[in-house]
Amino acid sequence: MNSRRNFLKAMGIMLGSTAGFSAFQYMSLADYSAKTPDDAGLQLNFEPYELQLRHVFTLASGSRSTTPVMLTTISYNGITGYGEASMPPYLGESHASATEFLSKVNLSLFSSPFLIEDILNYIDHLAPGNYAAKASVDIALHDLVGKLMKQPWHRIWGLNPDHAPNTSFTIGIDKPDVVVEKTKEAFAYGILKIKLGRGNDREMIRAVRSVTSVPLGVDVNQGWNNRDEAIEMIEWLDKQGVIYVEQPMNKTLPEDIAWITSRSPVPIIADEAVQVPSDVSKLAGIYSGINIKLMKCGGMRAAFTMVNMARALNLKVMIGCMTETSCAVTAAAQLSPMADWADLDGNLLINNDPYDGIKIRDGKVIIPERPGIGIEKL
Amino acid sequence: MNSRRNFLKAMGIMLGSTAGFSAFQYMSLADYSAKTPDDAGLQLNFEPYELQLRHVFTLASGSRSTTPVMLTTISYNGITGYGEASMPPYLGESHASATEFLSKVNLSLFSSPFLIEDILNYIDHLAPGNYAAKASVDIALHDLVGKLMKQPWHRIWGLNPDHAPNTSFTIGIDKPDVVVEKTKEAFAYGILKIKLGRGNDREMIRAVRSVTSVPLGVDVNQGWNNRDEAIEMIEWLDKQGVIYVEQPMNKTLPEDIAWITSRSPVPIIADEAVQVPSDVSKLAGIYSGINIKLMKCGGMRAAFTMVNMARALNLKVMIGCMTETSCAVTAAAQLSPMADWADLDGNLLINNDPYDGIKIRDGKVIIPERPGIGIEKL
Repeated sequence: MNSRRNFLKAMGIMLGSTAGFSAFQYMSLADYSAKTPDDAGLQLNFEPYELQLRHVFTLASGSRSTTPVMLTTISYNGITGYGEASMPPYLGESHASATEFLSKVNLSLFSSPFLIEDILNYIDHLAPGNYAAKASVDIALHDLVGKLMKQPWHRIWGLNPDHAPNTSFTIGIDKPDVVVEKTKEAFAYGILKIKLGRGNDREMIRAVRSVTSVPLGVDVNQGWNNRDEAIEMIEWLDKQGVIYVEQPMNKTLPEDIAWITSRSPVPIIADEAVQVPSDVSKLAGIYSGINIKLMKCGGMRAAFTMVNMARALNLKVMIGCMTETSCAVTAAAQLSPMADWADLDGNLLINNDPYDGIKIRDGKVIIPERPGIGIEKL
Repeated sequence: MNSRRNFLKAMGIMLGSTAGFSAFQYMSLADYSAKTPDDAGLQLNFEPYELQLRHVFTLASGSRSTTPVMLTTISYNGITGYGEASMPPYLGESHASATEFLSKVNLSLFSSPFLIEDILNYIDHLAPGNYAAKASVDIALHDLVGKLMKQPWHRIWGLNPDHAPNTSFTIGIDKPDVVVEKTKEAFAYGILKIKLGRGNDREMIRAVRSVTSVPLGVDVNQGWNNRDEAIEMIEWLDKQGVIYVEQPMNKTLPEDIAWITSRSPVPIIADEAVQVPSDVSKLAGIYSGINIKLMKCGGMRAAFTMVNMARALNLKVMIGCMTETSCAVTAAAQLSPMADWADLDGNLLINNDPYDGIKIRDGKVIIPERPGIGIEKL
């Protein structure tokens, strides 16, 4: 997406890293001086980790009980930034691919963590794809830089944390009695997101509605195959208190989806159809909004651009996540004051979270006031 | 552009300014505590000022020897941020209109300058238009917040100041002997931007070329009326070492301009055709790039969004300015590491600049390392 120009700029840095700019120049105004002279460089570390899911997780595409993640750190002058790559198998990344990618990263080429744009251009051009692995560097870098500036990212971005929206809790596809139990457990949420698209849609919604009257979002994960049936279902869902429908049909069918959006009583949100900033403008007129996830787009910087693009194009914004630790979910939460909806429950779907971060209070995202992305290691 | 949603959010703040969030909450982590208890609020001040131009300035639309500006400050806890509205008469703003607009602004509604998004939404909805007046608040607010974070904005934005591009010096339309004199004075610049569009285009270029061989940009300011003549002229200009053509025909003729862009050997840049973020995506496929100016779009925040949108859409980026003091020009320079070209000579066109800021060295933008926008009052 970011073209040869940026790559050349990034290479320019690498070639000029000793002559072009010194650590001194970057630290003349700030109070983040080196603790020891031999500990002045940027250092990336990473460690594979396996998330244990509280419930077996079922989508239109399959079921699983664990998610592989990579936990990263970037350290600089005794300060550590935390990052994470979450790699649900259907997206194609793995412990092996992330290890291969992250092993190529040499942050000692850069004299200062503040060179975020150069560092991320370098990362972006190390290999194609690998968006979750790239996000794990982006998040750790943002955490580090926020800590060096002693500010949380929502404040650096000029956002008001009081505008963080309600967040949804996701109910996976299952048998009615299991859905009823899961729904009862989610009583603290103001919105539930119900996974549909496996042929038992009305049964799923009826099971949820038997125990709650909160607004529902639905995520079809491309599971519907016919636009006439889709709009009929959406009209029924609207009557059941559904407030948005995510990715109703396959992303390769934009004409069908535009047809649905133009007739739908509720907003139609792109998820699988949107990945990076260059996708956003193509979706105006087809969808009503976009679901932005750090693991899809490569991290916080791309996500911030996407939110701003979406707003300029009058598209609604959802900030979503994968099953993730509080690291990546709290990083995403920093953006949530700009979103119409948050779907930031990834850390609540696991039972071995190594971090403390985002909280949910009265169904609403509470962003920590800690600097950086706002987490602490437990 | 930013829709009802943001307006409602901004109003939410105003209504909830005492209950919603306290100064304490915002200052728990940062070292910007109040100097005195009775000096804790945000305070906007403004003062009309008249820029004296070094040379009578001639565009396709007319000539003038002064530019009215408004100099603003926002103070908070003893720290002052500087801003500016530059109001060349053809854009419709004036000392009177800016005074009327800025008199309506009540920043004491906001508990913290870090609430940039809320404050700018509030400003944006006080009245339509008034983009220069709005920019004068945006710039002062960014200067203040950068000073509170003790960082220059290029660093907060993660940019590398070494990537700041060459900047052009503008040569206005005039008689050949005057053009030759102005060109000789501009020997320090690596690019000259030549104003065309008043019927003496070849005469202008020949006068410049009689004394310099540096690359030239040309700015037609909508001055050409026929696309066949335009492309013929562009092909001639290409042979004279012209590297881009800005706004060749009227912005209301996108089909003619797309026709020119598809045939032009050099990039065609939108200026009059682009104002705010919502314009950017419409210009892909019509122009090769956009000229972003703080006074057109309302300030640094909108400009940063526009640069990122343009890059995602594979549009080239020029950062431009009006005749301005070093205040607004240096604010724009903070963005310049993301630009393909800078046209940041506004402060050099005047002889009563009250500030020290941006420097030009070997034709390249040098962004000061001072925090905020990087200026000091002289």
